[in-house]
Amino acid sequence: MKTRVSVLGLGRMGSALARTLIKAGHPSNVWNRSPDKAQPLAALGATVAANVREAIAASDIVIVNVTDYAASQVLLRDPKVAQTLRGKLIVELSSGTPREAREAARWTEGQGALYLDGAILATPDIIGSTAAMILVSGPLAAFTAHQETLATLGAVSHVGADPGTAAALEAVGLSQLWGGLFAALHAIAIADAEGIPFATLERQWKDGVPVIEGLVADLIKRTAGKRFAADAETLSTVGVHTHALRHLADISRIHNLDPGLTRTYAAHFERAVAAGHLEDDFAAMTQFTRIAPEAAPKAADGTRPSRHT
Amino acid sequence: MKTRVSVLGLGRMGSALARTLIKAGHPSNVWNRSPDKAQPLAALGATVAANVREAIAASDIVIVNVTDYAASQVLLRDPKVAQTLRGKLIVELSSGTPREAREAARWTEGQGALYLDGAILATPDIIGSTAAMILVSGPLAAFTAHQETLATLGAVSHVGADPGTAAALEAVGLSQLWGGLFAALHAIAIADAEGIPFATLERQWKDGVPVIEGLVADLIKRTAGKRFAADAETLSTVGVHTHALRHLADISRIHNLDPGLTRTYAAHFERAVAAGHLEDDFAAMTQFTRIAPEAAPKAADGTRPSRHT
Repeated sequence: MKTRVSVLGLGRMGSALARTLIKAGHPSNVWNRSPDKAQPLAALGATVAANVREAIAASDIVIVNVTDYAASQVLLRDPKVAQTLRGKLIVELSSGTPREAREAARWTEGQGALYLDGAILATPDIIGSTAAMILVSGPLAAFTAHQETLATLGAVSHVGADPGTAAALEAVGLSQLWGGLFAALHAIAIADAEGIPFATLERQWKDGVPVIEGLVADLIKRTAGKRFAADAETLSTVGVHTHALRHLADISRIHNLDPGLTRTYAAHFERAVAAGHLEDDFAAMTQFTRIAPEAAPKAADGTRPSRHT
Repeated sequence: MKTRVSVLGLGRMGSALARTLIKAGHPSNVWNRSPDKAQPLAALGATVAANVREAIAASDIVIVNVTDYAASQVLLRDPKVAQTLRGKLIVELSSGTPREAREAARWTEGQGALYLDGAILATPDIIGSTAAMILVSGPLAAFTAHQETLATLGAVSHVGADPGTAAALEAVGLSQLWGGLFAALHAIAIADAEGIPFATLERQWKDGVPVIEGLVADLIKRTAGKRFAADAETLSTVGVHTHALRHLADISRIHNLDPGLTRTYAAHFERAVAAGHLEDDFAAMTQFTRIAPEAAPKAADGTRPSRHT
């Protein structure tokens, strides 16, 4: 008999998680704010819980996948719900910041429950396959005890005992995702405006992938070793980049492309050049991604965010 | 006897080009504004030209690699130089926009010379290896006649008869390059602030590369087919992205990271959502990379750039 699992939140992703568990033979109890989302899962054999309390009471493992941590905490902190948490394992797969994950862990553990925080770096269609990367952080023992069940959902890996690690790595993944996708959007616009066939663009992009992967690996290694001065192994200097940036800015302007990306790149380079790094390795740029706190945007509540320590 | 080649411009890249040709056995004539850069090449056997006119007169193929097109055109349009161009093949490897390349082609061909425009998607250290991607556009016959000589420099490919194509694809490559590198800079900053080891970051980045390559290939295919509405094969909607963007914006704010990237992404998403594409496939975003011409930044000379047609 496979472990019974409860799933809270049945959006596209939550439904995919529940469906995968059910198909793998896990008895499942599911809950969603609007109950119609539960019907396709009920048809597959899931028990539909009348409320959150009932869903949590039914299983030792509770997977949560709602809009965000705020929504999740509203559900769990309801006093009648909170008192059902003792002894449970909460696997929080809603998205948020590492800080929110750590706070959720503190509170949940305070209720006598175990807490694992996960980040899904995948789209719902590939949940259940090894292509679905799921990062989990929190107490290793809790992960190990339920690893087999969690592995049903994808390529699940434990990335650290700090419950904030999965969310931090999710942010890394999102940064990588949009860096690639927005560069591609602009490349598509340039190709379109210049009459480059999409097949040519696709081939060129594919050829560029390993080149950039090599540059990023070099960037990370140099940053780790603080090797910012240009040396015999330097692939490109800050000066070479600032010079080349003009060409992309020019073609972007000619075609009325949103100047936000090239301006942001330029602002980073200007800070580095102003600090005397024109002739340094590109890796010197890792020192210029932060802006002065007084220049940072305020949070919505008007407070000044402080740096995590 | 291998073809004699002249090289104008001996910066890091120009010197690497000349050095590679000399080592491959091409008799070479070299010129640089400041003649000291020519000395290491003279030591390898190059003939140092006293001026541009002399360098061009010496060979049937002239490779130009100076700061940019403007600098190149200043050299070539000198009346004494211009009259030496008839019958030569000018291979322009300086960087610029497709528009500048087309204009340089028109003028050069007007002098009775052949013109090929090239873009080097490589760093000087790998010139001469198959890892050095060099794109060439212009008359195919001129390329074919000198392909063997050009292939000495790297993996040279002819990408189109329009002399602007190589520069357009260079812009595509630069877009891809900085999309990747700036995403990596921000990922490094996040990892650093959150205590993620660099080895973990590097592994995670590597795992993400094929995922994003797949998403970009899908984006290009959908855009080519104008399949913007979400369908059964949709990997993610505009809504899913806009929602997830908050997490990256939040963590960036917490750590005082430059908000330029996330704000630019948000501005693109806002245009798409305002136009009613919240539930559409991410590919719908390709319609929102342009900004209205009246909102576009003016060129330095105060003129309003027009869209290339």
